Amino acid sequence: MITSSEPLARLYSVIPAGGIGSRLWPLSRADAPKFLHDLTGSGQTLLRDTWDRLVPLSGEQRIMVVTGRAHRAAVEQQLPELADPNVVLESEPRDSTAAIGLAAAILQLREPGVIIGSFPADQVIKGDGLFRSAVTEAVAAADAGYIVTIGIQPTEPAIGFGYIKSAAALAIDGAPTALAVDSFVEKPSPEVAEQYVAEGNYLWNAGIFIARADRLLAEIEAAEPELHAGLMKLAEAWDTPARGAVVDQVWPRLKKIAIDYSVAEPAAAAGKLVVIPGQFEWDDVGDFASIAKLHSGGRKSNLAILGDGARVLADSSSGIVVSHTGRMIALIGVEDIVVIDTPDALLVTTSANAQKVKAVVDALKLSGSSDVL
Amino acid sequence: MITSSEPLARLYSVIPAGGIGSRLWPLSRADAPKFLHDLTGSGQTLLRDTWDRLVPLSGEQRIMVVTGRAHRAAVEQQLPELADPNVVLESEPRDSTAAIGLAAAILQLREPGVIIGSFPADQVIKGDGLFRSAVTEAVAAADAGYIVTIGIQPTEPAIGFGYIKSAAALAIDGAPTALAVDSFVEKPSPEVAEQYVAEGNYLWNAGIFIARADRLLAEIEAAEPELHAGLMKLAEAWDTPARGAVVDQVWPRLKKIAIDYSVAEPAAAAGKLVVIPGQFEWDDVGDFASIAKLHSGGRKSNLAILGDGARVLADSSSGIVVSHTGRMIALIGVEDIVVIDTPDALLVTTSANAQKVKAVVDALKLSGSSDVL
Repeated sequence: MITSSEPLARLYSVIPAGGIGSRLWPLSRADAPKFLHDLTGSGQTLLRDTWDRLVPLSGEQRIMVVTGRAHRAAVEQQLPELADPNVVLESEPRDSTAAIGLAAAILQLREPGVIIGSFPADQVIKGDGLFRSAVTEAVAAADAGYIVTIGIQPTEPAIGFGYIKSAAALAIDGAPTALAVDSFVEKPSPEVAEQYVAEGNYLWNAGIFIARADRLLAEIEAAEPELHAGLMKLAEAWDTPARGAVVDQVWPRLKKIAIDYSVAEPAAAAGKLVVIPGQFEWDDVGDFASIAKLHSGGRKSNLAILGDGARVLADSSSGIVVSHTGRMIALIGVEDIVVIDTPDALLVTTSANAQKVKAVVDALKLSGSSDVL
Repeated sequence: MITSSEPLARLYSVIPAGGIGSRLWPLSRADAPKFLHDLTGSGQTLLRDTWDRLVPLSGEQRIMVVTGRAHRAAVEQQLPELADPNVVLESEPRDSTAAIGLAAAILQLREPGVIIGSFPADQVIKGDGLFRSAVTEAVAAADAGYIVTIGIQPTEPAIGFGYIKSAAALAIDGAPTALAVDSFVEKPSPEVAEQYVAEGNYLWNAGIFIARADRLLAEIEAAEPELHAGLMKLAEAWDTPARGAVVDQVWPRLKKIAIDYSVAEPAAAAGKLVVIPGQFEWDDVGDFASIAKLHSGGRKSNLAILGDGARVLADSSSGIVVSHTGRMIALIGVEDIVVIDTPDALLVTTSANAQKVKAVVDALKLSGSSDVL
């Protein structure tokens, strides 16, 4: 339980709902991105799962969603409680620093001293109590002035995630498990991943950031002053009639840079970043192998079947079938297979090749097959 | 060239167009059997290919097709030249002795002394000159009173075909390559198939039979007297107004037995069967592995793509894709894969499992999924 409710009361959750999830093509599309799918079998979209997870922390009036204009209707359908001032629409994608930075700038103007927590719209988390406990610690550390991330205790030497190398424990009020961050490291090779897990001080980077909005903006300003200036200009116009004109003028020119590079890595190098190790189950369900694992209870021998009205006839085949067509799908003797069946596109690959699906999307773009993207 | 045209002038070709081709599901269906598909990329169905192959031998007025009532319209659309008296419709399938025997009985009544050649409707043959040469020899041997089959010189130790064990060369006028037949043997194991090919006197059983109609009927009478009596009753009524009533009464009660068992094996045992070794390329395209091989020039590393308007994006994947939906199909890193994409059913398996496709059809029957059969 939290000892002081004050910092948590200043938390504003931000859900950047942007990425398409190219590794999940042909399920994820430009007009049906990953966060609008039910990949867990929960019966609702990942976006709605994310919302439901955050409501107990910040309340439904204090959750902002940053998404593309094209997704506005779908997002509002998923989140009917979402208040109008909490919808931030991007006219085009400008990466995560712009998305999260704009939310921070708008909220800081509306409510100086606000603490923002940015939570990706398309992750799977099990163990809501442990999640809330980690966020509560993170908010306390943010209140103390740190840029805070939540790292996930690895359960295996995953090669699909980035890692956070943690350092010494810190003494922060309300954040007893906080660790200093040595550095962020990119997705490792299998050998390096083994080493990380063996060393014990590496956590998975879940892409969750919690900070006072003014502290986050100061980091952006230090690293990317032009981008920061653009964000401030946008924020000042946001709640005025000038919003549209300023967005049209400023947004398309903002530098595209991930917040990991603009904020997290410099802050880590400067000793301003801390990590709260999360004990909850987490997955970014970044590819079909990950979804297959999620649905097979970790057993490789199983066949996961997703999709309303899926009709699948399989022998000893293993892997994952996602069926969105109602067609009869028969599998014979295929192991670790990935079959994604949609009305206009079909993917057949294996779990081992799941990360290469993005290359198909790139190839389809190049070949002018945008009708199925 | 033939030296005497007389026996060949008495040839009547019979095309039994019956089997569904369960190993080619979901391409082959009850209402779209194998012989109604273009599996070679020739641009026309296997049935039409068979017809075109036989016209130079017997002329289009002397080709009879035995098929199911349900396929009448499709067969007549494929073969507009097919004369009405040459259409023999089965009210239900009664296996090959009934189908070929009925054709023999009808033709023998119409034209005593006729020689019939029965040629399956769903095989692939390349080398029409060599085919005609083999049939011409077979007709000469049939005229001499033998039951004749054409065996295919094996090009590999195939396990998907039955074999014919040949014996001594025979001296038959007009059939210089004819060999006595020792026995018919079932589909062998890989080891036994290797042995057959090494021994050199084994030929693939192509299911082609040529004989004088009276001789064939005598063999059926000796082996299956009741079946023979039924066939004679049908034939006598065939060209009369009584046909319908007699068919309704007799046909459903005929014994179901393959002509291999009723005629070929007993005739071989009695020394009445000869084989002409065919030097042409032959395949029964019985499963998708066979079709894949046919389209890859024998190279396993290739990906064969069939289907009008197929859109396939593949990396180094190999195997076969048959696309009948126009959907985009992406393959990544799948080897010897078999993907058969139809509007209401999808099959994913591997070449090694191609023979097991029939089991899927059986399972679908058992599970009441007849809508996709």
